[in-house]
Amino acid sequence: MIIKGNILNVFTDEIYPAEVKINKGIIESVKEVNGEFDSLIVPGFIDSHIHIESSMLTPSRFAELALKQGTTSVVADPHEIANVMGVEGIEYMINDSHKSPLNYFFTVPSCVPSTKFETSGATIDSKIIDDFLSQDEFVALGEVMNYEDVINKNPEIMAKIDIAKKYNKPIDGHAPLLSGSRLEQYIKTGISTDHECSTPQEVMEKKRAGMKIMIREGSFSSDIDHFMYNNGDIIVNDDISAYDLLNRGHMNHCLRKAVDLGLDPFKAIRMVTLNPAQHYNLNRGSISVGKAADLVFIDNLTNFNVNKVIINGNVIYKKEKLLYKANPSPIRNTIFANQKVPEDFNVCTKDPKSKCAIVNVINYKKDPLITQKTTAKLNVNNGVVIPSVYNDILKISNIERYNGNTISNGFIKGFGIKNGAIASTVSHDSHNIIVVGTNNDYMTQAVNFLIKNKGGLVAISNQGHAELTLPIAGLMSDKSPYNIIKSSEYLNKFIKNMGCNLESPFMVLSFAALLVIPELKMSNQGLFDVNQNKFIDVIEKEI
Amino acid sequence: MIIKGNILNVFTDEIYPAEVKINKGIIESVKEVNGEFDSLIVPGFIDSHIHIESSMLTPSRFAELALKQGTTSVVADPHEIANVMGVEGIEYMINDSHKSPLNYFFTVPSCVPSTKFETSGATIDSKIIDDFLSQDEFVALGEVMNYEDVINKNPEIMAKIDIAKKYNKPIDGHAPLLSGSRLEQYIKTGISTDHECSTPQEVMEKKRAGMKIMIREGSFSSDIDHFMYNNGDIIVNDDISAYDLLNRGHMNHCLRKAVDLGLDPFKAIRMVTLNPAQHYNLNRGSISVGKAADLVFIDNLTNFNVNKVIINGNVIYKKEKLLYKANPSPIRNTIFANQKVPEDFNVCTKDPKSKCAIVNVINYKKDPLITQKTTAKLNVNNGVVIPSVYNDILKISNIERYNGNTISNGFIKGFGIKNGAIASTVSHDSHNIIVVGTNNDYMTQAVNFLIKNKGGLVAISNQGHAELTLPIAGLMSDKSPYNIIKSSEYLNKFIKNMGCNLESPFMVLSFAALLVIPELKMSNQGLFDVNQNKFIDVIEKEI
Repeated sequence: MIIKGNILNVFTDEIYPAEVKINKGIIESVKEVNGEFDSLIVPGFIDSHIHIESSMLTPSRFAELALKQGTTSVVADPHEIANVMGVEGIEYMINDSHKSPLNYFFTVPSCVPSTKFETSGATIDSKIIDDFLSQDEFVALGEVMNYEDVINKNPEIMAKIDIAKKYNKPIDGHAPLLSGSRLEQYIKTGISTDHECSTPQEVMEKKRAGMKIMIREGSFSSDIDHFMYNNGDIIVNDDISAYDLLNRGHMNHCLRKAVDLGLDPFKAIRMVTLNPAQHYNLNRGSISVGKAADLVFIDNLTNFNVNKVIINGNVIYKKEKLLYKANPSPIRNTIFANQKVPEDFNVCTKDPKSKCAIVNVINYKKDPLITQKTTAKLNVNNGVVIPSVYNDILKISNIERYNGNTISNGFIKGFGIKNGAIASTVSHDSHNIIVVGTNNDYMTQAVNFLIKNKGGLVAISNQGHAELTLPIAGLMSDKSPYNIIKSSEYLNKFIKNMGCNLESPFMVLSFAALLVIPELKMSNQGLFDVNQNKFIDVIEKEI
Repeated sequence: MIIKGNILNVFTDEIYPAEVKINKGIIESVKEVNGEFDSLIVPGFIDSHIHIESSMLTPSRFAELALKQGTTSVVADPHEIANVMGVEGIEYMINDSHKSPLNYFFTVPSCVPSTKFETSGATIDSKIIDDFLSQDEFVALGEVMNYEDVINKNPEIMAKIDIAKKYNKPIDGHAPLLSGSRLEQYIKTGISTDHECSTPQEVMEKKRAGMKIMIREGSFSSDIDHFMYNNGDIIVNDDISAYDLLNRGHMNHCLRKAVDLGLDPFKAIRMVTLNPAQHYNLNRGSISVGKAADLVFIDNLTNFNVNKVIINGNVIYKKEKLLYKANPSPIRNTIFANQKVPEDFNVCTKDPKSKCAIVNVINYKKDPLITQKTTAKLNVNNGVVIPSVYNDILKISNIERYNGNTISNGFIKGFGIKNGAIASTVSHDSHNIIVVGTNNDYMTQAVNFLIKNKGGLVAISNQGHAELTLPIAGLMSDKSPYNIIKSSEYLNKFIKNMGCNLESPFMVLSFAALLVIPELKMSNQGLFDVNQNKFIDVIEKEI
C-alpha cells in the first residue's frame, strides 16, 4: 500500500509532501516527494488513559465512535469492570476489544477493591497483576489511587509496584492534591504519571518532581481550558460519554481545543501521539519507518476534522463511512441484590421521640468528583429523619449488589429533584446500586427496577419512568452507541423535568460513592469521611 | 545528608534555591527554600556512548580524570577489548569499573568481530549477548556497525537485535552516510540511535526517521561546532584521550562549547543528563525524588567549572581534591606474534624485473576516520616496491597478533614521516599490530619492540625511540593517567621531530585498519576497499 500526502513529522515539527509505503501493517518507507496534496496526514491519535466503561459502551462499541474521530489506539484501564467481575471482567474487555480494529492496550487495575470501606465484587491481587503484566497487551500498572497505602508502604501495593518494575513497565499515578513530602514518598516508589492536577501549582510541583503530567480533557473533567496546557506531557480523557464521543470528538476535540487556546499544534499533536507511545512503549505514534501504520487524514491543524483513518495499514474510515461493525458478546448477570421495601431506606434516630436531627450531608457543588461535607437540620417523624425537598436535602442510599444485601442511607444536597428518584448501577468504584430520591417509595421502585433489569440507569417520578439498560456488568450496554445516546438524552430530559438542573446527574450520582476523592461519600457500609478516612454517623445530633 | 544550593530542574528549565535530602544514595526529597546560595547544582553528567579503551586508561583509571569533570555515569561500549579478548575482556572492564565510584553501565558489543575481513581475537555470539543483556548493568545492545549485514538480514545480527528487544533494551546504531531505503531498512529493525552523522542533511534524514541523534564531541571527532547542535538529542564522546579528558574536560567541555555556540543551556544540560538517562533507562539524570543522588556543583552555565561532585550520595570530589584512588588489576598477555624480519614487510611485484608499479594508496586527509583511495607510481627495486618518502608515500603493514602470524603490506599517504616508523597495538577494530614507516628496518624494530613489550605504542627513528606500554590487552595501561599523558606527549613530540605534522598520529594510525569506515583500509589479510566491500591488490599495474 502506498499513500501520498502532506505528512506531519513529530520528530522535526515539519510538514512535507511524502510517499508512505506500508507493508504488513508496518511503515516500510517514508520518502519526501515533489507534489501538491490536499490531505494532511498525522499519526493516529492515542488516548493513553481511559476507562472505556464510562462511555457505557463495550470496547468494540466504543471503537464504532472513536475510530471516526481519528483515535487509533487507546490505553484502557478496565478498573470499573474489574471491581465488579475481577479477572473475568478484564478478560471480557480484552476479548471484546479484539473484535475491533482499534488498537487496544490495557493497564492492569492496581487498586481493586479501591477501598476496604465499600463492598466490591472482586479482588485483583499481586498474583493476578503478575499474570497480566507478563502479557504484551498490558503496558503498565494502572493508576495507583490508594496513595495512603503507598505512603504507608502497604506490602500488597508495594508488591504490585515491584511487579511492574520487574517487567520494566510504567506505573500510573492518581494523586489529587497530594503535595510535599507525602507526594515525594508516593513518587519515590516509581509512580510516574498524574492526571489529577487541579491547579497550576499542583502541575508545577509534580512536574518539578519528574512526573509526566497528563492533562485530562474528558466528559467528567475538562482541564485544558483551566490551566496547565503549557506544562502537560500527554492529553488523556480518563472518562468520556458516548454523547461527547459522538458530538464533540475524542482526541481530535482535545487538539482543537488546545490549539484554539494557543498551544503550538506540533506540541499538541505530540501529546496525543509520540509522547504517550514512547511512555507506554507502543511501537507507533509517528509516521516513520518501522512503526505501525496508524494514519489519520485531517483537514488542517485548526479544526482537526478527520476524513480518513488507517490502522495497521488498513483503511477503517473513509468518506464518512466506517468499514467496521461491532458485535459484542453477552455476559452473565452481576446484580444479586434482593428486592427492596420502602422501610429499607429509612434513616432512624436512636430516640424515636426526637423532633429534629442535625445530619451530615454530602454537598455537591460544581466539580462532579469532589463533594463537600456540610450539615443540615431535618425534621424527624416517628423516629425517621425526613428529607427536605424544599431545601434540596434529598435521600441517598447505597445498596450492595454483591449478594450481601447491605444498605446504607443518608442525605445529599445539590440534585434539586422535586419529585422522584434516580438510581444507577454505575457507582465508582465498587459499582453498587446508588440512588437519590425525594422519598422512600420512589427510591424503592428505582432500585427494584435496576435489580430486575440486571443493571442500568433509571429515573422514576410521578410522570412515569425513563431507563437505560446496562447488562454488561451493570456498566455497559451491548447495544449500538446511537441507542445509548438516544436513551441517555431522553433520561436526562426526563430528569430535568423532575426539577434537577445538573448537567450530568448520573455522573454526579456515580461519584457519590467514590471514596478515594474528598470529601464526604456514601458507601454501602456507611457514610464515609474521606479526609478522616473513616465512617461517620449520618445523624450528628438528635433534638 | 542534606545539601542546599541553587538547583537546576531539567523538567521545568528552572533554577531555584532548594534543600536536597539524600538517603542511602537516593534523593529522598527536594524542597524549594528561601535563601541565597552561591553554588549551582546540576544533575551529574552522563556520557552515554564511550569506548573507555580509547583513553588508554582502564575504567577505574578513567574515573580518576572523568570524576573531576563532573561525569558521574558513563555507558561504556567495551567493543575494543571484546575484539581482543571477548568475554574475558568485557569482564575485566566490569570488574575494574567496580573499583571506582563512577557509575559504569555497559552496552554489549554487537559486532565482534566487526568484520570477517580482518583476524580478531574473539567472537561475541548471540548466546553471549543474551547472557550479558540479561544483567542489569548492560543497558543496551552496542552500536550495530555492520549495517550491510542488517540490511541483508544476516541471521546472526538479527538474532542479536531480537535479544535486545526481548529484554526491552535499546539498540544503538552506527551508520555513517547511510541514507534512503538502505537507512530505512536499518532503522526498521529497531536500531534507535546514531552518532555518526557528518552533515546537517544526514542529521535531518535520521531525525525525521525517528532516530535519536547523538552529537559526538570527542577527541577523534568534534561535531558540535560543525553543525547540528540544534537537532541533537544526546551529546556523547565516543572516544576521548586521557590528555583531553584532563586538559579540556569531558561532558563539561561539551556543555561549555555547545552553550558558547548558542545552544540553550537547559537544553544542553538535558542532552547529557535527562535525555541519556531516559533513553537507557538509568534511574538518574535529574535532581528529583527517587533518583540516584548524582550531583555536580558548577560555577555557572557558561564555564561549567566543576567544584564538587557527589555520586550516589557520596562526596567524591571537593575543593580540587579527588577522594578516590584507582588500583587496577593486571591481565594476561595478548600479543602472540612472532618476531619479524625486514623482508616480512616487502611489497613484491609479480615480475621481478618491473621498474615501476602503480599502487593503490590509503590517502589520509583530514578526518581521522575516513580515508580516500588514491594511486601512486612507485619505483621497484629487485621486485620490491619502494616507498617514496619525498612524496609522502610510506609503507603501512598490519601484523596479526592472534597467533596466526599473517601480515599484509601496502602504502599510505599523509603521515609525513621523513625517517623512522611508528607502530601500535591499538588498531580498530581487531587491534592487530599496525605500523607505518619509511623503510622495513624501522618497521621491523618498531613491531618487534611492541611484541616484546606485550603491547603499546612506539616510535623509532635515527634519534632513538619513544614508547608507551599498554599491557592491558595492548589497549590500556594500568598506570596513572598522568604518566600516560606524559608519555603520550613525549611520543607525539618525538614523532613531530620525525617530520610528521599530524595532530594525533596514533589516532590516524589506529583507524587505518577500521574496515567499517570508508574508503581504503589495511587489514592483516590484505588491502580492503570498504565501498566495494572486498580486498583489492596493492599493485594495480606493473611497468
